[in-house]
Amino acid sequence: MREIYLDNSSTTRVSPAAAETVMRVMTEDYGNPSSLHQKGFDAEKYIKASARSIAKALKVSEGEIYFTSGGTEANNWALIGGALANRRAGNKIITTKMEHPAVSEPLRYLAGEGFEVVGIDVDSQGRLDLAQLERELDGDVILISMMYVNNEIGAVTPVHEIGKMKRQLCPNALYHIDAIQAFGKYRIYPREIGADMLSVSGHKLHGPKGTGFLYKSERAKVLPLILGGGQQSGLRSGTENVPGIAGLGVACEEAYRDLDASVAHMRSLRERMCEGLSGMEGVVIHGMPGDEGAPHIVNAAFIGVGSEVLQHALEDRGIYVSAGSACSSHKRAGSPTLTAIGAPKEEMSSSIRMSFSALNTVEEVDQTLEALREILPMLRRYIRR
Amino acid sequence: MREIYLDNSSTTRVSPAAAETVMRVMTEDYGNPSSLHQKGFDAEKYIKASARSIAKALKVSEGEIYFTSGGTEANNWALIGGALANRRAGNKIITTKMEHPAVSEPLRYLAGEGFEVVGIDVDSQGRLDLAQLERELDGDVILISMMYVNNEIGAVTPVHEIGKMKRQLCPNALYHIDAIQAFGKYRIYPREIGADMLSVSGHKLHGPKGTGFLYKSERAKVLPLILGGGQQSGLRSGTENVPGIAGLGVACEEAYRDLDASVAHMRSLRERMCEGLSGMEGVVIHGMPGDEGAPHIVNAAFIGVGSEVLQHALEDRGIYVSAGSACSSHKRAGSPTLTAIGAPKEEMSSSIRMSFSALNTVEEVDQTLEALREILPMLRRYIRR
Repeated sequence: MREIYLDNSSTTRVSPAAAETVMRVMTEDYGNPSSLHQKGFDAEKYIKASARSIAKALKVSEGEIYFTSGGTEANNWALIGGALANRRAGNKIITTKMEHPAVSEPLRYLAGEGFEVVGIDVDSQGRLDLAQLERELDGDVILISMMYVNNEIGAVTPVHEIGKMKRQLCPNALYHIDAIQAFGKYRIYPREIGADMLSVSGHKLHGPKGTGFLYKSERAKVLPLILGGGQQSGLRSGTENVPGIAGLGVACEEAYRDLDASVAHMRSLRERMCEGLSGMEGVVIHGMPGDEGAPHIVNAAFIGVGSEVLQHALEDRGIYVSAGSACSSHKRAGSPTLTAIGAPKEEMSSSIRMSFSALNTVEEVDQTLEALREILPMLRRYIRR
Repeated sequence: MREIYLDNSSTTRVSPAAAETVMRVMTEDYGNPSSLHQKGFDAEKYIKASARSIAKALKVSEGEIYFTSGGTEANNWALIGGALANRRAGNKIITTKMEHPAVSEPLRYLAGEGFEVVGIDVDSQGRLDLAQLERELDGDVILISMMYVNNEIGAVTPVHEIGKMKRQLCPNALYHIDAIQAFGKYRIYPREIGADMLSVSGHKLHGPKGTGFLYKSERAKVLPLILGGGQQSGLRSGTENVPGIAGLGVACEEAYRDLDASVAHMRSLRERMCEGLSGMEGVVIHGMPGDEGAPHIVNAAFIGVGSEVLQHALEDRGIYVSAGSACSSHKRAGSPTLTAIGAPKEEMSSSIRMSFSALNTVEEVDQTLEALREILPMLRRYIRR
C-alpha cells in the first residue's frame, strides 16, 4: 500500500540534500565551532553559511540569525527574553486567541509574572479583529506576538498591516512573528513587515528535527534563555548543533529555490481538496477560503464522525492526517484555534487537518477524497446503529 | 599528515553506529512523536528505546530521562528550574569555584534574582574544600550543583561524599551533578549518590551534537525552562529531535559496553602523557595525580610559551589540543578553573589541555610528546630573542 502523507504541518520528510548534509558534516567535520583550531574553524563555516542562506531569504543580516533547538525554543526565548528585557518600558503583551501552545504557554507564564497579556479575538474563519487590536495597542505595550499562519486551520494574519499599526501606536514595542507554519510558504521580509523577531522550525520545512532559528533584529533587546559559554554572541549558549544547522540551511535554500511553483502546487492541491470536500454531505471546512488562507492546510469537520475514528480509518488506507495538531497532542483539552473561531462542539470533535508539502500530488488528493467518500457513509452508518 | 585529535573534551568524533542511526531514523522514520498515527508511534519508539538505554546505564527509571538540546540546556534547566521551583523552601545555592560557564552563568543569573550563591573553594589540584562545604550546608540550602569531572583539568569531585553530607545537613535540597565530562568515563548511579538531577551532553561521548539529557528524579520539583505543546510530561516542550535522541542512545550504549577497558586505555594514555611531560623542563601539570583525576584530561603549563602559540605549533603538525576550554572560548577573560586553583599568571597564559577518547592510541601520545620535545626549545628560543 502506497503511503499518502498529509500531515506536513506536524512534521515533514527530511529532504535528501539536507539529510546528506547532516550526515556529511556529522562524520567529516565534527569539530567544536568554539575551538580555536582548524577543526573549529571548519565547523564554524557551516554555521556562517547556514546563517547566510537564511539571512538572504529574509533579507536581513546573517548576524541577526540565532540558531535554536527548534521553533518552540525560539518562541520561548523571543517572548520570555523579550518581555523580561523590556519590563521597565511597559507591562502589556498583545497576542491572538489562536496561538500555538509554544506561544500561549510562555505568555501564560509571563501573565503569572505580572504581565498583562491580551489575546485579540478572531472571527469564525480566523480573521483577527483589527479594530480590537487597534484599541489595545497603546504606550504600555512592550511586546506583540502574532502567528503568521495558524497551524490548525491555516488562517493568515495580516502581519504587514499589524506592523504599520504598531509603528504608529506603540513604536517601541517588540514585534514577534511565529512563522513556523509560514516560512517556506511565503516570502517573509521582517524589515518590511517591521518585525523585530521571527521564529522558524527546521522540521516543518524538510529540514532536520532539533533545529530552528530566531531572527532577532539588531535593535531588539532580548535576554538570553540559555546561558553559558557565550556562543552566538552570548545570546544562545551551548555548543551549536553544527550538522543540524548545516542541514537547516540546505532545507531553507531548497524551500526558497522554487517557492512560487511549490506554493502554486500546494495551493492547487488545497483547492482540489476543498472542492472535493464541498461536494460531500455534512462536511464543514474551517479557515479562510481560497488565496486568503495558507496554501498547505485544510481543516474540516466531518459531522457525526469522531476525529480520531476518521484518522484511524484513513490510516488503515495508508493516509496520514492529523486529529488535532500533533505539536500539542499531549494536551487533549481541545483545540485552541477551533475554540477561538467559535466552532460548535460537533465540529470540534469531528475535525481533522490535512496538510501538504510540495511532495504531495494531485493523485494523492484524489485518492484521499475517494477514500473519504467510501469511509464516511460507512462510519456514519456504524455510529447510527 | 595523519591527524592526532586530542581535544575530546571539546567535542568527539561521532561513532559510526550513532551516525548511521541518526541518518536512518532521519530518513526512514520522520514522523512527529506526538502524532497519533503509526508514523508518530514509530518515532516515539526511538525516544523510549533511547531513554531505556540511558536509564539502564544510570540505574534509574526511563521516565526520569528528559531529552534536551545539549548539556548547556540541561544545566540551565536544572539550575533555574530547580531554584525557582523551590524558592519558598530557602534561598541558598551551593556550588564550586571551578564550574563550567553552563553552570556558573545560570547561577550568576539566579544571584541577580536574589538567591545567595556560594562557591566552595578548591585547592591547587582542584580538590573541593569539604570543611567549608560542610559549614555552608544548612537548612536554607535549596540547591547544590557540583561538577563531577572538571572540564579543564580533570579534577574529580567526591560526589558520593557530598551526597552523604547533603542527606545529613540539608536533606530537602536538590542535588544536581554536571556530569558532562564524567558520563561515559565513570559508572554513575544517581540514586546511590543521592543526586536528584544529572546533566549529560551527547557530543562529548561520540554522540550527535544538539543532543543531551537531564536525569531528574521523580521527587525533584523543577519548573520547565521551555514551555509549549507539553512534550516530555510537560517538562520540556518542543518536538523531540528523534534522530538525535536515537543516536544519543546508541552512543550511550557504546560508551558503557566496554567501559572498564576504555577507561583503562584512556588512563594509560594519560599516565604516559604525564610521565613524558614530567621529564620536560618548565612543564607544570595541573589537576589531580594518577587515579584521583579523570582518565581523559591532561592540563599542563609550558612556562614561557603562550597557550595559543603552542596550540598552533602543534596544529601545524596535525595535533589538535585546546588552549582553554572550547566550550567557553568565546569568553577570553581567563580560565575559571585555573583561577580557582590559584595557578600563577605564567601558568595561566601557557596552559593547554589534551583530552583523550578511547579512539586515541599510544602512538599518538608518543608522537605528541616527540613533537613537544622538538617544538618547545624552538619556541622558547624564538621568544627569548
